[in-house]
Amino acid sequence: MVSIGIVGGTGYTGIELLRILLRHASAHVRIITSRSESGTRVVDYFPSLRGKTDLVFTDQSIKQLSQCDVVFFATPHGVAMEQARSLIEAGTKVIDLAADFRIKNLINWEKWYKLDHACPDLLDEAVYGLPELNREKIKSARIVANPGCYATSIELALIPLIKSGVVDHSNIIADAKSGVSGAGRKADIGVSFSEVSENFKAYGVSGHRHHPEIKEVLDGVSQSGPVNLQFTPHLLPQIRGILATVYVRLENSDRDVRSIFSEAYDNEPFVEVLPEGEFPDTKSTRGTNVCKLGLHIDVDSGRVVIISALDNLVKGAAGQAVQNMNIMTGLDERTGLLDIATVP
Amino acid sequence: MVSIGIVGGTGYTGIELLRILLRHASAHVRIITSRSESGTRVVDYFPSLRGKTDLVFTDQSIKQLSQCDVVFFATPHGVAMEQARSLIEAGTKVIDLAADFRIKNLINWEKWYKLDHACPDLLDEAVYGLPELNREKIKSARIVANPGCYATSIELALIPLIKSGVVDHSNIIADAKSGVSGAGRKADIGVSFSEVSENFKAYGVSGHRHHPEIKEVLDGVSQSGPVNLQFTPHLLPQIRGILATVYVRLENSDRDVRSIFSEAYDNEPFVEVLPEGEFPDTKSTRGTNVCKLGLHIDVDSGRVVIISALDNLVKGAAGQAVQNMNIMTGLDERTGLLDIATVP
Amino acid sequence: MVSIGIVGGTGYTGIELLRILLRHASAHVRIITSRSESGTRVVDYFPSLRGKTDLVFTDQSIKQLSQCDVVFFATPHGVAMEQARSLIEAGTKVIDLAADFRIKNLINWEKWYKLDHACPDLLDEAVYGLPELNREKIKSARIVANPGCYATSIELALIPLIKSGVVDHSNIIADAKSGVSGAGRKADIGVSFSEVSENFKAYGVSGHRHHPEIKEVLDGVSQSGPVNLQFTPHLLPQIRGILATVYVRLENSDRDVRSIFSEAYDNEPFVEVLPEGEFPDTKSTRGTNVCKLGLHIDVDSGRVVIISALDNLVKGAAGQAVQNMNIMTGLDERTGLLDIATVP
Amino acid sequence: MVSIGIVGGTGYTGIELLRILLRHASAHVRIITSRSESGTRVVDYFPSLRGKTDLVFTDQSIKQLSQCDVVFFATPHGVAMEQARSLIEAGTKVIDLAADFRIKNLINWEKWYKLDHACPDLLDEAVYGLPELNREKIKSARIVANPGCYATSIELALIPLIKSGVVDHSNIIADAKSGVSGAGRKADIGVSFSEVSENFKAYGVSGHRHHPEIKEVLDGVSQSGPVNLQFTPHLLPQIRGILATVYVRLENSDRDVRSIFSEAYDNEPFVEVLPEGEFPDTKSTRGTNVCKLGLHIDVDSGRVVIISALDNLVKGAAGQAVQNMNIMTGLDERTGLLDIATVP
Repeated sequence: MVSIGIVGGTGYTGIELLRILLRHASAHVRIITSRSESGTRVVDYFPSLRGKTDLVFTDQSIKQLSQCDVVFFATPHGVAMEQARSLIEAGTKVIDLAADFRIKNLINWEKWYKLDHACPDLLDEAVYGLPELNREKIKSARIVANPGCYATSIELALIPLIKSGVVDHSNIIADAKSGVSGAGRKADIGVSFSEVSENFKAYGVSGHRHHPEIKEVLDGVSQSGPVNLQFTPHLLPQIRGILATVYVRLENSDRDVRSIFSEAYDNEPFVEVLPEGEFPDTKSTRGTNVCKLGLHIDVDSGRVVIISALDNLVKGAAGQAVQNMNIMTGLDERTGLLDIATVP
Repeated sequence: MVSIGIVGGTGYTGIELLRILLRHASAHVRIITSRSESGTRVVDYFPSLRGKTDLVFTDQSIKQLSQCDVVFFATPHGVAMEQARSLIEAGTKVIDLAADFRIKNLINWEKWYKLDHACPDLLDEAVYGLPELNREKIKSARIVANPGCYATSIELALIPLIKSGVVDHSNIIADAKSGVSGAGRKADIGVSFSEVSENFKAYGVSGHRHHPEIKEVLDGVSQSGPVNLQFTPHLLPQIRGILATVYVRLENSDRDVRSIFSEAYDNEPFVEVLPEGEFPDTKSTRGTNVCKLGLHIDVDSGRVVIISALDNLVKGAAGQAVQNMNIMTGLDERTGLLDIATVP
Repeated sequence: MVSIGIVGGTGYTGIELLRILLRHASAHVRIITSRSESGTRVVDYFPSLRGKTDLVFTDQSIKQLSQCDVVFFATPHGVAMEQARSLIEAGTKVIDLAADFRIKNLINWEKWYKLDHACPDLLDEAVYGLPELNREKIKSARIVANPGCYATSIELALIPLIKSGVVDHSNIIADAKSGVSGAGRKADIGVSFSEVSENFKAYGVSGHRHHPEIKEVLDGVSQSGPVNLQFTPHLLPQIRGILATVYVRLENSDRDVRSIFSEAYDNEPFVEVLPEGEFPDTKSTRGTNVCKLGLHIDVDSGRVVIISALDNLVKGAAGQAVQNMNIMTGLDERTGLLDIATVP
Repeated sequence: MVSIGIVGGTGYTGIELLRILLRHASAHVRIITSRSESGTRVVDYFPSLRGKTDLVFTDQSIKQLSQCDVVFFATPHGVAMEQARSLIEAGTKVIDLAADFRIKNLINWEKWYKLDHACPDLLDEAVYGLPELNREKIKSARIVANPGCYATSIELALIPLIKSGVVDHSNIIADAKSGVSGAGRKADIGVSFSEVSENFKAYGVSGHRHHPEIKEVLDGVSQSGPVNLQFTPHLLPQIRGILATVYVRLENSDRDVRSIFSEAYDNEPFVEVLPEGEFPDTKSTRGTNVCKLGLHIDVDSGRVVIISALDNLVKGAAGQAVQNMNIMTGLDERTGLLDIATVP
């Protein structure tokens, strides 16, 4: 039984971690912290968990957290980096659902997150927790940087193509759309129902924090220099779900694009490449850890459109974090992650 | 041309007042105030108004407001009562969209609004601005208390029956449901999209501010003592619209209930009694100043169900306020209020 | 392992049965039928089930169905009654999610469902499958009539009070609101997104099929004659969820109302009575088999408001059907039904 | 006063035409036809119009329609082409909101609409009704083909750039998202609330009818050969609104892109180019005839992103049709089209 601490459990990634871990066959959540809600029973804060847990939010110290096998940080950016060193030195593995360890390039990170990094020396050690890319490294990692939700959807769509060297790097477009829960649980007019419902818009058109994260990962797998990526996020009037529509041009049409995806993902438990002519919707990924990919390949024009859909709170956050935990602790990677989407 | 000031124009009643008044044939908005947005052009704050107005939010004084013919308070509770006296003494008419003058009973008001009233002596003078009830008084009023949105929907459903003395006062139930915009434009997790969408709940079950307002109005038209009203508000996952389902028992079955409603409303421009067997939805009232009423009358059991629907921001707020302004200034009551609902 | 057949698996109760049964530790779905989709793989019809099942829709006969231990009818009204006799004679248990066996009073049934009943002699034998009311009878039942979704929510709110004889039978009001999925999976302008979204309305105000079902159950537990129930259904702009607001008057205030509910439900695995001052929303029941009840008791006025929330496709349909199956086959009643709501 | 006939008035473009024309200062709707609803009062079919019109749906002949000045076809594809000749020969102007006259290339049209064209000889005469492109021709047109909703949003975003010859034609991407009302008013599981709400998906990825329409218009304004356009439509969980995110590469960076748009649209009453750094949402166009454009210009990378938003039923259908009518009949182009968006 893996003993678990969750730091900062009052947001949407916090409740989603609880939803998954409270029914996980080999996990035991021992501690959940919240400064603002210290002393509150979790079920009083999250009534949907009534009858499922006796946990109480606490304001516990690193010392107590360090008695857990794994600590998840479901906190705002900048918290995990303050506590990670003490935890790993005590032998506790750290999984950060925020961005503190996602970007290796310190200058980029500090530019986008507007913070001084508390432990730049740990950036190199931290493993980017995309199992489909870094499974072996994750197995022995002490710190895992859980990828962003947009990043997961776009990287899974592009990594096989970039790795294979079959696409033009000079013009890759990722037009991505996210449900509102991606913004977190917060008091903000911008995510209020009356503003968001029956509305759709782009945001961050001239720059978004997930861009350097995605670019660093894609550059890392590229064999022919950096990629030129246009990433445009949009806000959907729905709670959960990311769908990214990714456009690339083929440079080398000898390779069969579909077989590139088959090779990459046929053995992956949480990536599903749909049959020709089928494309995913977000609803059929809701509540699951699956990223679904649909491919439109037009050999004549050399254009490939990849449509990638996932649940931003599961494969895009808490589910992938638990997948990483399973890998780090030697469990079956799928444990606790086999829910079927609630449709409709 | 009526010259108009709007105090506190950054909320939903503010933008709705602007939507109506900027196209009103006999109104000219001269001043719109906001402390927090003083100096901001209205179109930068509300992009939907681009091209429709040159107004800039100001932090103007009562002196300047008192040069307007009419001042609307689209403010939180407690603001209008501080400024009303100066304005009416300068000859400016006041329409308060908040609750400062809605309840005549000072003790009740102070209990529910948790404020000391700044001008209790003006409570008696202020006219409750439900034109279907108080049209004559509104004509000469200096202060109009614009009714609450729930109150308007429930009072229009019940006043004809209570007045006629045909219903049992001991058990009147108003099960009311409101869209989220009724809560105003605010940063609050409780109205965030992820919490409200795909969700429905009751609130204020044991007591809500609109209850004393409704009860005072109904008691006022009753000829046989006070009414016992159960009012239960619910939050709908939609932006606009209130629908109240009101249950009463007939005590005196000699009178034809439908004709009671006909007499009350056949000449009213903004109340529509639907034909037998038809009931309103909120969508067909959206953006309009109309309250639609559907009646189910079961003579055998003596039960009457009245279903009342309106747009909480129009007939439930800004539209009714403009209707009151039209009456107070001698204009055709319908001016500026004849929009057709945008369906679907 | 219970072997299972599902008749008519292409609707929302069909996919919800599959979602639950495919992860049920002691159930094996052997057959799923559909005339229109015979030959189609279930995963091609319901992409959210990809990777979870190899089932193919068939047009199989009663003979083949009768080799199952349990057959669920997720069909329109009128199908189960044609096949039930052959199945139970072959020793197969029948659970009908439609209304064929819900109402004992044949005249009432034929009036509301506008069909001649194919096996009126089996009506008496069939057990109304509300486990909280009929658990013992369900254990040995050959035919279970799974209750309607509205009926489940309202009956669970009222049965303890009616049984206890503490409420006035002459004026019980159930103001109920349902998500759109309650109407089933169908091509119908009335449930199209553009009509339903951003809209709310009552329907069936003068009569609804669930009324005689609810009344028969309540009359059955009453010790002082039939109840006079006003039931008003409304359509919510959300997919799942029923919330019923039920109004009664106390006749006998000696009994403590809260303790009546405690006695009734403290040992029930799927009914949750909330602490004083708390009321349920539909979201925290989504995807779960739980009915949540909140109580507002006003001893002075003698009024009790019970707010009852559940997921219409789970406790209101497929989940309750599996709960009944568990009881009928001697399994732990909770098997397969312990999902946590996906919030937000 | 322009006398008007509407053929096929029971869909969403029909009711939207009525909403606009019933309040249009210089228009009189004399006839509205519907085969299926012949004899039904319009207000019984569309309750939101109650009190606004006495029209009755009829099954009138071309002879009667030909006494109108203008006839709008709000019908499925293939109806207008059967009746257009008789009407124009009688001197009646025709505005087709369907696709019968949108594509000049007969082969393309017949391929995508799977019909034989009834009057191919009229294709050349018919004018594509995008006022910003063809205002002069529309003035004297006998037949106007009202553009598709996606087409309007994408063409307004691209025409200035294509005309100016500043963009690379070989790789233009239009990632477009539409509300559900774009699919029309129909009984179809695919547009039912439970399927569409809380969901997002692409469709027509490998080909969509609006593609040849858009391409023909863009090719027509190009000075350097045909464009290679990738058009990917997506379905939004909202009723109204189209937002297209259009990606192009600059080939000639001497010209200032923003000034190209200024020249094109500064005098246009219904196209609004937003200030630098601002991007439109769909909500602020709701119910209005305005197309809003936001520009992101990255001179270094040579990439331009144009975001185009409009109301698919107004500027994308009925509003643009009335704009065309105004032009064809010599009225002020803006008549009846100055509504302010209902926000929120």
